Amino acid sequence: MDTVFDDIILHPIGVIRNTTKQPFLVASATGLTMKGDLAPTIEEVRENEDKISEVIINQELTELLDGIDEYSHIKILYWAHGVPAEGRSLRKVHPMGNPEYPLVGLFSTCSPARPNPILTTVVRLIEKDGNVLQVTGLDAIDGSPVLDIKPHVREFYPEDEEDMRIPEWMERIQAQVRE
Amino acid sequence: MDTVFDDIILHPIGVIRNTTKQPFLVASATGLTMKGDLAPTIEEVRENEDKISEVIINQELTELLDGIDEYSHIKILYWAHGVPAEGRSLRKVHPMGNPEYPLVGLFSTCSPARPNPILTTVVRLIEKDGNVLQVTGLDAIDGSPVLDIKPHVREFYPEDEEDMRIPEWMERIQAQVRE
Repeated sequence: MDTVFDDIILHPIGVIRNTTKQPFLVASATGLTMKGDLAPTIEEVRENEDKISEVIINQELTELLDGIDEYSHIKILYWAHGVPAEGRSLRKVHPMGNPEYPLVGLFSTCSPARPNPILTTVVRLIEKDGNVLQVTGLDAIDGSPVLDIKPHVREFYPEDEEDMRIPEWMERIQAQVRE
Repeated sequence: MDTVFDDIILHPIGVIRNTTKQPFLVASATGLTMKGDLAPTIEEVRENEDKISEVIINQELTELLDGIDEYSHIKILYWAHGVPAEGRSLRKVHPMGNPEYPLVGLFSTCSPARPNPILTTVVRLIEKDGNVLQVTGLDAIDGSPVLDIKPHVREFYPEDEEDMRIPEWMERIQAQVRE
């Protein structure tokens, strides 16, 4: 028997502003589709590394940012508001919407469409000005609700051990983006 | 003017089972308190690294785990259900409930009590058996609702650059736990 929980209520704490108006992966009831061709999309993912986003925290929460600028890198949790309701029911997808990759379970992928589309990204904090953080490397689209901000501390993550494994298709995606 | 968003509804996807019955940090309306003395608590945090937790996904979502065992490490998003409602209103805390550390904004800390108490931990995946994952390194308490499971891919994180900075108090905490 599954444990049954009540629904959980989140109150967004702010909003993300940048020039990305459309997600590069479009979710529907049947799967993921890239919004354009592979090459320009990969290019966009790469360029995203240096693009500045503003993370604007609700003014009454400004005090919660005290000390955040002692970190060079922080983690942003945000809501993938571009995912349609039916995207939360996807079960298996071709990663990146690419049929050359195997059909795998949603939790094995980074698909923005997932049962609870909470996305997490570690970004570089460029500047803090009151309730506004300027960051680079945030792969969110404009208008995304912000859910949380956390420190990035290297020691929270496993060492780069020799036995760290990822699927072969994920290695191919990483090779494409980083090459 | 702040952007005003509707509340967001999450549906838990499973539950965490382990032998940790109490959080080591207790949140109240006025701040964080360690449940016991510093030394045994630090010891508990250390031991946690090797302790096995079960992540039990709701049976109807089992298919979403297909392929997850190709990863050695995965990220678990879960809800800090032990945090009382008033813990979501904290603004500044002494990290680890320790008055020797400066009073800093909530978002600069890893406090489980925060406006949206979504916690994220990268764990080692030991075994997958149907809808049950055995993992180590999960710092959750027994009964925590699971919100999402994601791949852990080293390339998603910044290089260990020389300019990676964390506050001095966070360095002291890390030194205590890792020594």
